[in-house]
Amino acid sequence: MFMLPIQSLRSKIQETSPLIHNMTNVVVTNFTANGLYALGASPVMAYAEEEVEEMASIAQALILNIGTLTKQEIDAMLIAGKSANKKGVPIIFDPVGVGATSFRTESARRLLEELDISVIRGNAGEIANLTGQAVEMRGVDSTAKMDDSLETAQEVAKTWNTIVALTGAKDIITDGTKVYSINNGHPLLTKITGAGCLLSSVVGAFAAVDEDNLLEAVASAVAFYGISAQVAASKDINMGPGHFQMHFLDSLHQVTPSQINEIVDVKL
Amino acid sequence: MFMLPIQSLRSKIQETSPLIHNMTNVVVTNFTANGLYALGASPVMAYAEEEVEEMASIAQALILNIGTLTKQEIDAMLIAGKSANKKGVPIIFDPVGVGATSFRTESARRLLEELDISVIRGNAGEIANLTGQAVEMRGVDSTAKMDDSLETAQEVAKTWNTIVALTGAKDIITDGTKVYSINNGHPLLTKITGAGCLLSSVVGAFAAVDEDNLLEAVASAVAFYGISAQVAASKDINMGPGHFQMHFLDSLHQVTPSQINEIVDVKL
Amino acid sequence: MFMLPIQSLRSKIQETSPLIHNMTNVVVTNFTANGLYALGASPVMAYAEEEVEEMASIAQALILNIGTLTKQEIDAMLIAGKSANKKGVPIIFDPVGVGATSFRTESARRLLEELDISVIRGNAGEIANLTGQAVEMRGVDSTAKMDDSLETAQEVAKTWNTIVALTGAKDIITDGTKVYSINNGHPLLTKITGAGCLLSSVVGAFAAVDEDNLLEAVASAVAFYGISAQVAASKDINMGPGHFQMHFLDSLHQVTPSQINEIVDVKL
Repeated sequence: MFMLPIQSLRSKIQETSPLIHNMTNVVVTNFTANGLYALGASPVMAYAEEEVEEMASIAQALILNIGTLTKQEIDAMLIAGKSANKKGVPIIFDPVGVGATSFRTESARRLLEELDISVIRGNAGEIANLTGQAVEMRGVDSTAKMDDSLETAQEVAKTWNTIVALTGAKDIITDGTKVYSINNGHPLLTKITGAGCLLSSVVGAFAAVDEDNLLEAVASAVAFYGISAQVAASKDINMGPGHFQMHFLDSLHQVTPSQINEIVDVKL
Repeated sequence: MFMLPIQSLRSKIQETSPLIHNMTNVVVTNFTANGLYALGASPVMAYAEEEVEEMASIAQALILNIGTLTKQEIDAMLIAGKSANKKGVPIIFDPVGVGATSFRTESARRLLEELDISVIRGNAGEIANLTGQAVEMRGVDSTAKMDDSLETAQEVAKTWNTIVALTGAKDIITDGTKVYSINNGHPLLTKITGAGCLLSSVVGAFAAVDEDNLLEAVASAVAFYGISAQVAASKDINMGPGHFQMHFLDSLHQVTPSQINEIVDVKL
Repeated sequence: MFMLPIQSLRSKIQETSPLIHNMTNVVVTNFTANGLYALGASPVMAYAEEEVEEMASIAQALILNIGTLTKQEIDAMLIAGKSANKKGVPIIFDPVGVGATSFRTESARRLLEELDISVIRGNAGEIANLTGQAVEMRGVDSTAKMDDSLETAQEVAKTWNTIVALTGAKDIITDGTKVYSINNGHPLLTKITGAGCLLSSVVGAFAAVDEDNLLEAVASAVAFYGISAQVAASKDINMGPGHFQMHFLDSLHQVTPSQINEIVDVKL
């Protein structure tokens, strides 16, 4: 098995509490902040065009999530993003629901064209819509088949010179050439809102403490997240989505190195 | 006992995952999305005037909730609502806190006058305020007595040619003529925020899969919701409001047909 | 031990359900509303400049929290605040992240200059930044040492003629002269988002039912909050942050007078 630095990056997050600036949607703010605190990072949410340049410049990662976008918020994301680019702060882009409306599609393209994005994290339908294909979306949920996902992910990574984390039942992490395939995760993640959104922020936290291999850091984040979900779900065989949320936040905080080693399922 | 199609509509939600477009308040977005996922529906939140016409037109139900309304949001609700009306997408209106401020009262009236609303879901005070009576509100909580609620609900239903779901300790569902009276539910629902708001969205999900009897679909939604609360509360006799939230989300996902049959308490 | 009227004020909240108008950040709205319901108060969130004057005037306390401030929201806070001042409704100010960006620092100063604030509740870094010192912030989290916190708190209290609740591992409540020092609380409060924000709203609820000694009411709120956290954390020695949230909401509802008496740790 290829060894990802999951635990070492996770420890570094716990030791250094990187500041993660989230510009995210109104549905998942609370869950995102709680997930980042559980992980050991220091979340901040800031949206006003009067302060995002300053906030992004002191952050260790910037998350741009268009789940409940407005024209104003996209404008503020561009200000924050340019500030992050100037300071070398990695930007994680979560193109929530791109393809569902033309406003989402155009806004995503605007962000991709005007900013240097380090990582794009989305589901199969969202990533496919970034290639210019018009793939049907059920609101923010993907109805795309995963079959040709690898090629799609590689195409998006090459087109935008970025890393793509296409996540779902199986996760694909690629820079366009190298590919990590991750089999961790749990179906209960699809029964709660914000599972993908929080993952994007967790990717930001791992990217924040990465030193020299962003692709490995992203793969580590996605694997760690899936492992945490599996540990959470294992607490009770009849677990419902309400209790899963709580166990999952616990896991992000409490998963042990030996659990990581036992459960990790990654192929290069 | 009159037989409502509670389980058959619920199964249809689980099988078809109807897309529910929520324009709701910032307090309850997360709980609403989680409740809809638990139920088996596919929630989306979208607020920007640039995209709501398109999003509402592909949804199976549209929820308009004025809990933290702004002028801009009301304008966007009108755009979304007209789009929904054009496509025959049912609109559920939740007049949160109407009567507490004149801005809420006027905004509610504007929505009712300019849109065809399929269902209004509110507490006794909110529904009473829609008749033009000025009934005292404690913010978004009703202080109205339930005594003359039936007549009030019928009056509102007739005035606006809609179905009214007036919910509280006892629930009244009426189209102005026919009346369902529902005795399901649990007092812990009053100890958590968003219990009414999520119910409005759940009504939307049942309306989305209804074929030819909207009144029955609304009554089924309200009964199912109350039953889920009872099943949740039954898990622990000393349950506090924190744990109730989680058990309740579990119940929306896990309540069984036989639990529905045992607990349902509806009169026509 | 000095006797604070913790239980009597708490009972009064449960009996009278004071209406608490929160203008707070998008991260903590749900948790804040749930915490206030659990406590027995009646929360309302209202932000639109069209309604905040009216809403603040019927509230028993107004909470101004700048966690995700915008220019528009600050303008609305000034309208609400002036309305509250006119009616004698106490204002609790939570200067989230002040010092992290100049927009936060300037906005905080504007609120303090134009409104009569009854209580400021913040962490050590936030309170220090209100003195005009530029103390480093990690986003919304304080990196300040607590050593000279007492003097800082007293200085801020005197400057703005207000009560300061500087909370952290140890809590300091002062009107500039008299000082309460509170040793209740639990480290898990630092692992969830909104613990400080909800505390500000709980302070509002205690202030709402206070009759003639606001300093005691604030100290009672802070002690009650810390005690509730201790009771919550005591339920399970391996508790993670996910479950802590739920137990904490339960505790705000269920803590008993005898638990309060046993656990309270306050010095005058």
